[in-house]
Amino acid sequence: MEVMEQALEQTSSYRWHANGQSAFGEDLLSLYRKLDGLFLRLAGLYRAREYQFPTFISARELAKLDYFTSFPQIVTFPVCLDAGEDNLQAFSDGSPLDGDGQVRLTATAPVREVLTPAACYHLYIHLQGQRLDGPRHLTTRNTCFRRETHYLPLQRQWSFSMREIVCLGSAEEVKRFLESARERVARIFAQIKLPIDWKPATDPFFRPQRSAKYLVQRLDPVKTEMVFEDRLAIGSVNLHRNYFGEAFDIRRGDEAAFSGCVAFGLERWMFAFLSRFGPSAGDWPDLDTLRVL
Amino acid sequence: MEVMEQALEQTSSYRWHANGQSAFGEDLLSLYRKLDGLFLRLAGLYRAREYQFPTFISARELAKLDYFTSFPQIVTFPVCLDAGEDNLQAFSDGSPLDGDGQVRLTATAPVREVLTPAACYHLYIHLQGQRLDGPRHLTTRNTCFRRETHYLPLQRQWSFSMREIVCLGSAEEVKRFLESARERVARIFAQIKLPIDWKPATDPFFRPQRSAKYLVQRLDPVKTEMVFEDRLAIGSVNLHRNYFGEAFDIRRGDEAAFSGCVAFGLERWMFAFLSRFGPSAGDWPDLDTLRVL
Repeated sequence: MEVMEQALEQTSSYRWHANGQSAFGEDLLSLYRKLDGLFLRLAGLYRAREYQFPTFISARELAKLDYFTSFPQIVTFPVCLDAGEDNLQAFSDGSPLDGDGQVRLTATAPVREVLTPAACYHLYIHLQGQRLDGPRHLTTRNTCFRRETHYLPLQRQWSFSMREIVCLGSAEEVKRFLESARERVARIFAQIKLPIDWKPATDPFFRPQRSAKYLVQRLDPVKTEMVFEDRLAIGSVNLHRNYFGEAFDIRRGDEAAFSGCVAFGLERWMFAFLSRFGPSAGDWPDLDTLRVL
Repeated sequence: MEVMEQALEQTSSYRWHANGQSAFGEDLLSLYRKLDGLFLRLAGLYRAREYQFPTFISARELAKLDYFTSFPQIVTFPVCLDAGEDNLQAFSDGSPLDGDGQVRLTATAPVREVLTPAACYHLYIHLQGQRLDGPRHLTTRNTCFRRETHYLPLQRQWSFSMREIVCLGSAEEVKRFLESARERVARIFAQIKLPIDWKPATDPFFRPQRSAKYLVQRLDPVKTEMVFEDRLAIGSVNLHRNYFGEAFDIRRGDEAAFSGCVAFGLERWMFAFLSRFGPSAGDWPDLDTLRVL
């Protein structure tokens, strides 16, 4: 691992920000785009419609998922100063940062938004209240934000990119999609010789032992991760059952729609690539000519 | 204007979020990408190196620009809950939202970051402390965040996309770049017949009459906007003189480097396109074959 991090430091196209984020140039930006292009080609096999959503999600929508009680430790809120002129003046006059680089906030405006924690939430909100007359495939990529206790370059970041391919439909339609997508992803790993194991997993609930949802996930695993070299999950296949269908009143026939998604963490895929194939772009497998089938 | 907004509402590929942000699908996402592709081709004529930076900027870096005293009304901060288990439990137990959809924040963690207010700031921070042995051209696109008193679809958003092409170098090198880029952009407008006037402008300083920087901008205009139909600035050409060079200790020869940028607001370009050419993709000029020269 350390070797990889030293290599990263020597790459002029990478810079790690101590606040848990990465900057890319040249080769790494090209790798980022090629990986996303690969996932988009996979999405294309399902004729998934692509959407681009904003950075913020309405807190009221997210509350329908009990997000704030399940993951309070992760959430990042966008906060502005109260717009009153006296308040802005007080902020501006009062030396806005302390010696430690910490912002001395004065009164803040009401908070009604959250920085996107998972790309696919936007899609369920988008489809809210709809009746589907067949399975629906969609895809989106977004920057996602999750506060952690510590950060590691490409592996664990406050903000990172997530591409998701989602299916909504009947239980059968969603399960068929997830099986098919998992097989196709496995063929990608086999073609580029990336050492990946599939492992059941659970989401990082706050106080898991007290969370009914965590216990349900333990009893009947619905999340399977793509684990690189036994140490880093670079993606996952998730069956949500009718959880989002019920929360957002999306129906398939007479029932709340089922949903499932395949999620790819772009920076973590980059980490796996750099670890496995080295820091030189010339040594990486050619993703543009890789056949997704 | 209203006609355009009704057209937008009828476009399945657009959705306006009341929190001042837009979602795109299909045709509009394609237009977004084609426009950015056009700006990238322009950047390519200067062999500009492309970078992708994170969503957050260190408040300490931004303070070097007096940003907090100049624009306190605009800033959005990313804020997390204090990570103490009792605090998270209190948040989670206390019904996190009120009936109005407003988040009931408990204690928050120290704030040291800001949501990017302008794409190019990252580039100056990236080059901090460097000595340039020739003009340097760079480009980046980022989601930018500016709180406003009201929002309008595509025209005035809390978050929006900005592509910038930046030159750092001597005063002469930077001025030559800005003149050349402005001519090339003007040729793009002429080719696609987009009615644009160039107009001097100033940045939206807090209490402008009290801001020395605002007065300097008024006396010696350094910002020229691309104004669509006399009503919406969709981009700008900016000469920063040695402002960023001094703030971030970037030198060209024995002097603080000069810098200048050409900035494109992607959603506003989309607005101009939709207003001028209508909501149907078939009626839009073909950007992929447009020659940038």
